[in-house]
Amino acid sequence: MTPSKTLPDAHPLASGRTSAAPLVRALSGDRPDTLPVWFMRQAGRSLPEYKAAREGTTMLESCLDPALSSEITLQPVRRHGVDAAVFYSDIVVPLLVAGVGVEIQPGVGPVMDQPYRTADDVARLVEHELTWEALAPVREGVERTVAELGEIPLIGFAGAPFTLAAYLVEGRPSRDHLAARTLMHADPETWFSLVEWAADVTGTFLRAQVLAGASAGQLFDSWAGALSLDDYSRYALPASSRALTHVTDLVPAVPLVHFGTGTGHLLEAMRHAGAGAIGVDYRTPLDEAAKLLGGTTPLQGNIDPALLFAPWEVLEEHVRDVVERGRYAPAHVVNLGHGVPPETDPTVLTRVVELVHSL
Amino acid sequence: MTPSKTLPDAHPLASGRTSAAPLVRALSGDRPDTLPVWFMRQAGRSLPEYKAAREGTTMLESCLDPALSSEITLQPVRRHGVDAAVFYSDIVVPLLVAGVGVEIQPGVGPVMDQPYRTADDVARLVEHELTWEALAPVREGVERTVAELGEIPLIGFAGAPFTLAAYLVEGRPSRDHLAARTLMHADPETWFSLVEWAADVTGTFLRAQVLAGASAGQLFDSWAGALSLDDYSRYALPASSRALTHVTDLVPAVPLVHFGTGTGHLLEAMRHAGAGAIGVDYRTPLDEAAKLLGGTTPLQGNIDPALLFAPWEVLEEHVRDVVERGRYAPAHVVNLGHGVPPETDPTVLTRVVELVHSL
Repeated sequence: MTPSKTLPDAHPLASGRTSAAPLVRALSGDRPDTLPVWFMRQAGRSLPEYKAAREGTTMLESCLDPALSSEITLQPVRRHGVDAAVFYSDIVVPLLVAGVGVEIQPGVGPVMDQPYRTADDVARLVEHELTWEALAPVREGVERTVAELGEIPLIGFAGAPFTLAAYLVEGRPSRDHLAARTLMHADPETWFSLVEWAADVTGTFLRAQVLAGASAGQLFDSWAGALSLDDYSRYALPASSRALTHVTDLVPAVPLVHFGTGTGHLLEAMRHAGAGAIGVDYRTPLDEAAKLLGGTTPLQGNIDPALLFAPWEVLEEHVRDVVERGRYAPAHVVNLGHGVPPETDPTVLTRVVELVHSL
Repeated sequence: MTPSKTLPDAHPLASGRTSAAPLVRALSGDRPDTLPVWFMRQAGRSLPEYKAAREGTTMLESCLDPALSSEITLQPVRRHGVDAAVFYSDIVVPLLVAGVGVEIQPGVGPVMDQPYRTADDVARLVEHELTWEALAPVREGVERTVAELGEIPLIGFAGAPFTLAAYLVEGRPSRDHLAARTLMHADPETWFSLVEWAADVTGTFLRAQVLAGASAGQLFDSWAGALSLDDYSRYALPASSRALTHVTDLVPAVPLVHFGTGTGHLLEAMRHAGAGAIGVDYRTPLDEAAKLLGGTTPLQGNIDPALLFAPWEVLEEHVRDVVERGRYAPAHVVNLGHGVPPETDPTVLTRVVELVHSL
């Protein structure tokens, strides 16, 4: 089944349901009256209600249970009053749905059934197809969520091909991502076959969420910061562009944002992947990021998650500074400069939302 | 016992023994006929003779056994013909010698007896003094090594205070170093007390190696890349400067080099810590680093360790490219842009040395 090229009538944007939402307007380059705020990994281990809901299921099982993924996605919206939900999932979900052996080991992260390093490994891998039918639990999870959210937008979510490929090549999380960099230089043909497949799989996953009702999409490139600008431009960026082509026909109705960690040296290149807005990690001040990006790109970010554990006065001063620096960009969505740490006190996040909405 | 302010007569530089060595000349800003090359972590798990020598001892035991630390330090010099030895040790050795509870868990890294996070924790920690006497096994290891090395220089080695503090605050290795960033903002007084103590401990450790015969010194700031430029300049750089003041009275006789990973955005600031030469990680091309540093700073680096696993032609082209880009700096010491991975085939490293020496 080929996905339809246009938004269904029920889509929140087709029906105008979220088009006035501060998040959608800001990601599209506008400055709404309320500064929108959400948190990467807001649906997750920082919430006691998440731990209760997850009891007895593995993380990947919960991602593929529409009632559960929808409930978990809604939890932080109810609790914190954030301006967007982000669909509860994991970047490896489309691999699993495509039939690749992967599990998420608690305290470790995604572990593949094998490392995919040789031409033969990759040739076998790319035979896996991600069908629209197999994504039914994801689409249903999104539909249920959107039905509850009303005028609050849902952000669809997918990993960038480089980050997926880094997990696939290493077979598990790694500090250095050496094997991915080795493969791209040692056997570029195999590398491109791998990342192009990953681009289509992750792009299809993102499109499924958008067509099911997500009002925006975010591409996460967790490990791009491990690359030099030259390697990124040659071996990662083209695949990120390819992933985004699965949804760029729906822009501007559905705005896109692109985020990576440790990517200060890559921000300008990342902009060429095709997302209109850029997420900035906590290392690069937003005024500097705005300058690097020519002052024309809406920015998302970048409260240092470490400051969530500092006294409120210290955190408040930091949040105000982030908002001040964000004024150098044409538009700003407040977020963390990395995901919510599991140990975070959720009442602090609620207070940050209240503060941002008062600014 | 207070360390003497001048180099002892037996010191390789006082006796002129290594002052003409290509490594010493290059770190001092000169361009010797032979391009010097060594590898971070060259003494270690990539060598079968290392594994044999280490059998039956823990890593920290082997660091404090002068016969063993000397033997391990010499192994890569014998095997690869590199232009320098780097003293086999670990950045936590001075903590251990000062009486702080720390062990290196295989596959994990340094694990402290407790996290040092509160004002009370740090107050107890800074009562530990690193005496000159307690460093005897380190000094003896260096003396034995230097006696064998002849005209080949030994590089002394110490961790930067921020990286030591990151381990101390977290209590163990961490991907995000959140607790360190929290502490510096939440309680700057405690943070500065911690890093100033770490600066004196690590600076004394480096001075002990230099006075025992090391011809150069390297400060490693493994985790500095986790900081924004602003946080680095405020909370890490002053302590790195303080650590280096323990040896800067011996410059220019003993040149210093300063290295960190993921520090492209910090290179210019790092130069102000007081080391004359800067080590560059594999993410920043040397020509760009030379430009960032005003074209006046000797550079060390930056072969991507991932390329050690690529076919020789690919690696050779990369090494030649690194050397070409290094010509934009006034002087260049070839090295990796991160440590030798444990799985490296040591014959590849030997071949890289031969190639660099032929260029």
